[in-house]
Parts: sequence; C-alpha cells; structure tokens
Amino acid sequence: MSATKRLTYGQRAAKYTNPAAKALLETMERKKSNLCVSVDVVKSADLLAVVDAVGPHICLIKTHVDIIEDFGHELVAQLQALAQKHDFLIFEDRKFADIGNTVALQYSSGVHKIASWSHITNAHPVAGPSIITGLASVGQPLGRGLLLLAEMSSKGSLATGAYTEAAVQMARENRDFVVGFIAQRRMDGIGAPAGVSLKDEDFLILTPGVGLDVKGDGMGQQYRTPKQVVLEDGCDVIIVGRGIYGKDPTKVAEIGKQAVRYQAAGWAAYVERVNALV
Amino acid sequence: MSATKRLTYGQRAAKYTNPAAKALLETMERKKSNLCVSVDVVKSADLLAVVDAVGPHICLIKTHVDIIEDFGHELVAQLQALAQKHDFLIFEDRKFADIGNTVALQYSSGVHKIASWSHITNAHPVAGPSIITGLASVGQPLGRGLLLLAEMSSKGSLATGAYTEAAVQMARENRDFVVGFIAQRRMDGIGAPAGVSLKDEDFLILTPGVGLDVKGDGMGQQYRTPKQVVLEDGCDVIIVGRGIYGKDPTKVAEIGKQAVRYQAAGWAAYVERVNALV
Repeated sequence: MSATKRLTYGQRAAKYTNPAAKALLETMERKKSNLCVSVDVVKSADLLAVVDAVGPHICLIKTHVDIIEDFGHELVAQLQALAQKHDFLIFEDRKFADIGNTVALQYSSGVHKIASWSHITNAHPVAGPSIITGLASVGQPLGRGLLLLAEMSSKGSLATGAYTEAAVQMARENRDFVVGFIAQRRMDGIGAPAGVSLKDEDFLILTPGVGLDVKGDGMGQQYRTPKQVVLEDGCDVIIVGRGIYGKDPTKVAEIGKQAVRYQAAGWAAYVERVNALV
Repeated sequence: MSATKRLTYGQRAAKYTNPAAKALLETMERKKSNLCVSVDVVKSADLLAVVDAVGPHICLIKTHVDIIEDFGHELVAQLQALAQKHDFLIFEDRKFADIGNTVALQYSSGVHKIASWSHITNAHPVAGPSIITGLASVGQPLGRGLLLLAEMSSKGSLATGAYTEAAVQMARENRDFVVGFIAQRRMDGIGAPAGVSLKDEDFLILTPGVGLDVKGDGMGQQYRTPKQVVLEDGCDVIIVGRGIYGKDPTKVAEIGKQAVRYQAAGWAAYVERVNALV
C-alpha cells in the first residue's frame, strides 16, 4: 500500500518542486476538486463555452487543440483568461510520441506553440528516454510538467506489464520534469530495483475513461466510476469528457450541472480515501 | 527468409489493393527510387525549397506539418503541386497515439486536416486496435494508407519483442488500410499463430535512422547505412532527414546532390537484394 494515497493534496503540494505539479495540487486543495474536464470539440466557440461552464468546478482543463478548425492566438488568449477567471490549469493532451529532436520542435513550434501556454502535457514512453530529454529542453525552463502514458484506458492497449514498468523507471530518472502518469492506478514503487522500496515516492496519477453513466463508446474506450478510480485505485485526478459535455457543447446549463456532479463524486471518493483507517 | 524481399517493387505493386500502397510501389519502380526524404524545418519556404530540390530523386516526402510556423492551405496546395511536378507521394509522420474517437478527429479536422492531403500516415499501436478503426473511418474512404510503428530507431525504445508482435497482429487484421510498418527489418510472418506460416505476406517496411556519414545526433537517434537497411535487413524505403538537408535548408544545390547520392545507394542495395542467389 502506497503511503502517498493517505496524504492530502495540500500535503503533497508542499513536497513537489516542479511548478506545474505544485500549482495543480494547490488548486485541487483550494477548489476541492480533482476533476479535469476533457473537451473534444472542433470549434473555438464551443470549446470556450464548455470551459466557461465547467471552469468553477475543475482543477484542470484537458484540450486537443489540434482538432480545433479555427485555432489561433486569440483562442489561447481567451483560454488563458478563463483559466485566470476560474482558477484552473491547462493540459494539452498531445501524446508526444517521436524522437527527442522532433518532439522538441513539435512542443515549441508550429501553429500551436503548445509549450508557451500549456502547463502540463504528456508523452508516450515508447520512443525511449530521448523523448523526455527533448521535451524537457523546451518545457523545463518554462516551469512546465510532463506526464508519461504508463497505461491507457482503451481496449487492447499495449501499455501493460514491462512497458508500464519501463515508463515508471524513465519517469523516476527525470523527477524534475516528469511529475506523474496517465494511468489507471498508483505507480509509486512500480519497477523499483530489487530490494529497494520506493512505496513512498509520489507521482501524480491522472486517469481518463471515467464515467458515472456509461460503460463504453463503441470505439474501444472503457469507463470506470470516480469511486473505483480514486478510492479503490488511488488515482489523483479524474478525467471526464463526454460524460460532462455530452453530444451538445452549447447546452451550458446542463454541462455545468454535470460538472458539479462529477466534482462532488470525485471529491467524496478522495475524502473517503484520505480518511480511511486502513 | 521472406520470399517478399526477392520480388521487385513492381511485382509487389500488382498484389496490393490499397491505393496508396500500390501508388507508392509503382512510383518506386518507375523512378528507381526507394528514398523518402524527411524534412523537419519550421518555415513553409524552407520546406518547399527542400522538397523542390529533392523531388526528382524521391518516391515519398515525409513531413511534420505541426512544426511549421506559417502553415496554411497555401502550403498544402504548393506541396501537392510539387508532388505532381516531381511524381512523389506525401507521408505526414503524425504518429497518432490516442483512442479511436480522438484520432479520427485529429486526422480529419483541426488546422492541418491531414487526411485531406497526406497519402500515407502512421500510428503507434500502443492504444490498441481502436486506433486503426478510428483512423480507417476517416482515411479508408479517401484511399489513404496507414503504417504502424512496430519498432523505433531511437535508443531505449520500448517497441520491441511482444510489443512488435502485437503491432504486426493488429496490422494483419486490418490489411485493407494498414499497408506496412515503420520498422528496422521485415515483419512478414512475425507474431504468426503457432503452426501457421505467413512468410510470404507482404508488408511495406519504411525505415528511419538512415545515414551514410554519421552514427547519432546526441538526442538518442541512431543511424544505419542504406546497405544495412535494404540489403541485409530487407526494408523497402529508406527515410533520410538531416543526412540530406543538413543544417541549412537553403543550400538547394548541395541538398539535391545528397539526394542523388542516397537515391543511388538505396537503389543499389535493392538491386543487389532482388538479384541475390540465396
């Protein structure tokens, strides 16, 4: 049993030196929210409408800016203004997956200039450690944080077993920049050298595939509840997408209501976890 | 020994039904080129200058449009005009790596609209089979082809062993859309069920990390020669980047000269391979 899952987000914030991770944990504690909303819409106006509706209830917004048809600098400015207004951080779910030289360019350059506005981003460890070196060369001077994809919530994922262990080992060697994982359970101590106990290390665990009402999407995505994810498996942040914004991103009243519901479910699971006697 | 590596590109083109794979093999045969040039520059003008210089000598151009600062519809139109002028195909090296629902949006939408202009793209199998379903829903009606990343050329890559086998199995179940692999050796028959021989199946193998003059880039990339890649390991297309355009994308005369050199080396290795007696 990891001791980390008994600590409060605030206690853990104090131990982090990475600015993005520290800010995220502090925001979670302050807002009583471990909810990250994932918004996969293709128009800027829809993205901003959903973000403004869920903003008061989240610690983090997860974007895929490469699906936005009318992406531009103006969208980034408006997203940053909403992040200020509602007090949350931004996580571009880019899933970098190339060699070091290429990801450094993809992170810093192009139309999207992700490093300039996204507090947190993520990468697949499949390319090997050079992907961390490449991204760190751009993001670390800006105070950014990186998550590695140690596991995936989709059916038939190959991120299991030795792959997951290798991801954790790569993270462990880059603690200043790699702040945690996209995973389905705690990773503290996973893949530790024989005879070494690392159960008290602290990685942030952000978990997609969370839903209160459905089991799957017909395209391989599988869902679990906030209680399973946070209380039983010790994850830190629940990532909820279509469960909150449904099929119509303009129904902001309903979207806000769903965000409240998921915030409450995620926080209740966390409170029960830190207060558990065993 | 795979029988496929003894066949000519033209013989193999006749067996493919996927339009992109067939067109690529026919182009290779017609132009006597198995050279793909990878261009990682951040300005449209530099990209177009390099592509125009290498165009006569290549079968395929590999792009990372997400690093282009001034990307726009005009660039796509100019790239397509050069592909017509010089007779080559376009491969956006996107390395999709998300769940089916998300990659379908990333492939079709956003600023880049990759599916509308890129004949071939690629994906990591790590998310499981839904990534193929998602991409195929967009690309197959357009006659596009997909490569899976079965191996990577960077140091410490996790795409090895059972991971590579699973990639080939996923491809085998989606032969209409998955036309081959990014890999370092032939994949025909890899991961076949016990007792089943699939050595005569035909997957295109495109191989990055090819260089005539250097061993590595200091960021984890490792290089092998065209002879090692095509003759010894049976790969089909050599992908060459910095070995051709060096550090200055404006030196087009020198870039053209290097493309001729790599075209000759790649083709000589192929001729030696198909003419080998054993």
